[in-house]
Amino acid sequence: MNEEKLYETAQKCVESRDLSGLKKCLKEMYPADVEMLMEGLNEKELLLVFRLLPKELAAEVFVEMDPEMQESLITRFTDKELSEVMSELYVDDTVDIIEEMPANIVTRLLKSADSETRKQINDILKYPKDSAGSVMTTEFVKLRESMTVLEAFQTIRRVGVDKETIYTCYVTERAKLIGVVTVKDMLLCEETKTIGEIMERNVIYVNTHDDKEETVNLMSKYDFMTMPVTDAEGRLVGIVTFDDAIDVIQEETTEDIEKMAAITPTDKPYLKLGVFQTWKNRIPWLALLMVSATFTGTIISRYEDSLAKVVALTAFIPMLMDSGGNAGSQASVTIIRGLSLEEIRFGDIFRVIWKEFRVSLLCGISLALLGFLKAMFIDRVSVTIGVVIALTLFVTIVCAKLVGCVLPMLAKKLGFDPAVMASPFITTIVDAIGLVVYFNIATLLLDALK
Amino acid sequence: MNEEKLYETAQKCVESRDLSGLKKCLKEMYPADVEMLMEGLNEKELLLVFRLLPKELAAEVFVEMDPEMQESLITRFTDKELSEVMSELYVDDTVDIIEEMPANIVTRLLKSADSETRKQINDILKYPKDSAGSVMTTEFVKLRESMTVLEAFQTIRRVGVDKETIYTCYVTERAKLIGVVTVKDMLLCEETKTIGEIMERNVIYVNTHDDKEETVNLMSKYDFMTMPVTDAEGRLVGIVTFDDAIDVIQEETTEDIEKMAAITPTDKPYLKLGVFQTWKNRIPWLALLMVSATFTGTIISRYEDSLAKVVALTAFIPMLMDSGGNAGSQASVTIIRGLSLEEIRFGDIFRVIWKEFRVSLLCGISLALLGFLKAMFIDRVSVTIGVVIALTLFVTIVCAKLVGCVLPMLAKKLGFDPAVMASPFITTIVDAIGLVVYFNIATLLLDALK
Repeated sequence: MNEEKLYETAQKCVESRDLSGLKKCLKEMYPADVEMLMEGLNEKELLLVFRLLPKELAAEVFVEMDPEMQESLITRFTDKELSEVMSELYVDDTVDIIEEMPANIVTRLLKSADSETRKQINDILKYPKDSAGSVMTTEFVKLRESMTVLEAFQTIRRVGVDKETIYTCYVTERAKLIGVVTVKDMLLCEETKTIGEIMERNVIYVNTHDDKEETVNLMSKYDFMTMPVTDAEGRLVGIVTFDDAIDVIQEETTEDIEKMAAITPTDKPYLKLGVFQTWKNRIPWLALLMVSATFTGTIISRYEDSLAKVVALTAFIPMLMDSGGNAGSQASVTIIRGLSLEEIRFGDIFRVIWKEFRVSLLCGISLALLGFLKAMFIDRVSVTIGVVIALTLFVTIVCAKLVGCVLPMLAKKLGFDPAVMASPFITTIVDAIGLVVYFNIATLLLDALK
Repeated sequence: MNEEKLYETAQKCVESRDLSGLKKCLKEMYPADVEMLMEGLNEKELLLVFRLLPKELAAEVFVEMDPEMQESLITRFTDKELSEVMSELYVDDTVDIIEEMPANIVTRLLKSADSETRKQINDILKYPKDSAGSVMTTEFVKLRESMTVLEAFQTIRRVGVDKETIYTCYVTERAKLIGVVTVKDMLLCEETKTIGEIMERNVIYVNTHDDKEETVNLMSKYDFMTMPVTDAEGRLVGIVTFDDAIDVIQEETTEDIEKMAAITPTDKPYLKLGVFQTWKNRIPWLALLMVSATFTGTIISRYEDSLAKVVALTAFIPMLMDSGGNAGSQASVTIIRGLSLEEIRFGDIFRVIWKEFRVSLLCGISLALLGFLKAMFIDRVSVTIGVVIALTLFVTIVCAKLVGCVLPMLAKKLGFDPAVMASPFITTIVDAIGLVVYFNIATLLLDALK
């Protein structure tokens, strides 16, 4: 790839302090690659290299950087440099940056923006963290119904250089969203037609306060490149673009995965998150789950007498608990993912239970059989204990699968996050069920045979 | 929302068999919503409603359907209807459909395509399942360097109606990819300029055999709407569009999540997958993990004597095992997600280990302290057993975190899928470590105090 060679040449220029060579390379490079190149530099070099970048590229590279790098640059920028970079940034990117900065930097950033931009920034900052408003950009192309296609193109040419996405244009009347038209539609029809004739009037849009995950799900459902965002009065106030949509998808999925693994979610990449913060995100769950395991311990203590009589039973505790936990999390993780992709809705709960019930019968029977054979021929226990183990496996797996599918759906219905219901909690519940079943079956069968 | 009202009206028309009313609604609706409407219909009604759709919309709705619905329609289509739908489909969508159909339907589909399309379909079908080639479309706009912007627009107008994405055009010379230019660039410059003057010559592209996940990561890194795909000779053969990219992201993430939960991944939504198939995807892992738990059982058996002497020790086994497992999967899941988002690379292994080591010390100390207090004041055990539990917790958590971060990175380096290394396997290893540590510390301390 051409880009790789460029990157290597640029790296050599940095090492040999060949600034004019570096400047030539940088001009040709993509923002994401320039950012990667700058990651290795110290603060002084960073500013030096940044000053070599052409104005527009500089802003694009700036957006790619992590907050620490941005902060270090902003602190060193002259006021003139700062407002130059700011004027090249899209408003939604500026907002993303502001959200990560300490208060003194925020003040400086807001001061360097022109008053119109400052107003837009403040508007976006007001929206709740997970809302469509918080990820939208306020820059988009507005057209009027009465324009001809030719006039529309002139409008796009005039205002388009500042707009993040020009390919989907929105038609407004007294600020209200009344239609949508794509550049493709306009290119493929007569230039004398009016926008009103070719626009789609049935517009799908979201409200500023709608959830950003739902917004992105809608974009993916309808294959939209951009989604219009309106305020409570139906006025078009912004758009969500596809690149931000992809970021939202990745972030939301990472959050789900972290919750399923009992970690408080964060939006920072692993290597950028401090040790102390990582600990803070992990320890509450570890502690909570450890304490909730008391419950399991209590159950075992209650059956200490039976265990003392037949110590062989103890050896199977980990296997029974692990199998139950695994069976439960297979079900819960599948359901949680299905819920977040909107492939499963609460209305499907009986279909889901019925399906998991049949799957659990199949899994339960297979594992019980295998467990029995293993106990008999590998662990060489008595037939009675073999039967105890097989029966316990069967009952535990059926319960585990049912708990695993029902809990996340109930959580969703009650407005909790289903992902938090995943593996760890379900494991604790399933462990308890498994042990109670185990000891009761054991007591019953062993007593009966005495 | 306008769209919701339309949907409800359409539903009422279906119920009251008001076909002409339904036809009017359908014309206005988005493909994804028409598909949702059709989900509840029986096979006969399905065909009836489908025949009401305008030609272009019919094809778009057809693409949204799941394979069973498509198959039932294709079986009922006349040859003329089939070739009408086929002629409206984009080649990449046709390929997606063909991949899901039984052989006899595939033959019929291929026969109904014109020879040019058939050739393109066969070309795409040849690429490996997870390659960029398998998700690309062969329809895109090609320009030449010597064209003026005005001529380029004429080309787009002429060929554009068939092309899935026209906003990014590729410039070729004897089929080789030499540049890229966007419609935005063209709109914002003089119409008399040549494409050669305004195009970007440093093109980022992928090869047909490159992994589709990498392709999508590159698109997300560079914020590309489309990614060009070249063959081994550098000839441009297709493009991957952003809507397919989003699908790939969602599918790959679902696969990762399923693997982490010990399920063989599938690309079918939960409710569409049969009970037997669901069982087949889950049982091998359950069985494997159950058998591997034998190992843990063996460890417990070896210490049966100590357990018989101090039965209180048994009650803490589940808590110790769960805490170790949770601590390990917190680390492994974070690393696996970081690897798949390319935020972590193999080269970072020592930074990762050093970080996890410090986090594990913090987590280990906190949990040991908490575990000690809980054992002393809630479970009311002796100080010796309290110390045994605290020490075991500490050592287990440090080991669990280290195993949890190292295993996925090694798996990645060795070319295995890191996601398969996640929770379940790590749990088994961590369980074993935890128990050995537990019994050894217990034996040491209890003997010393005798």
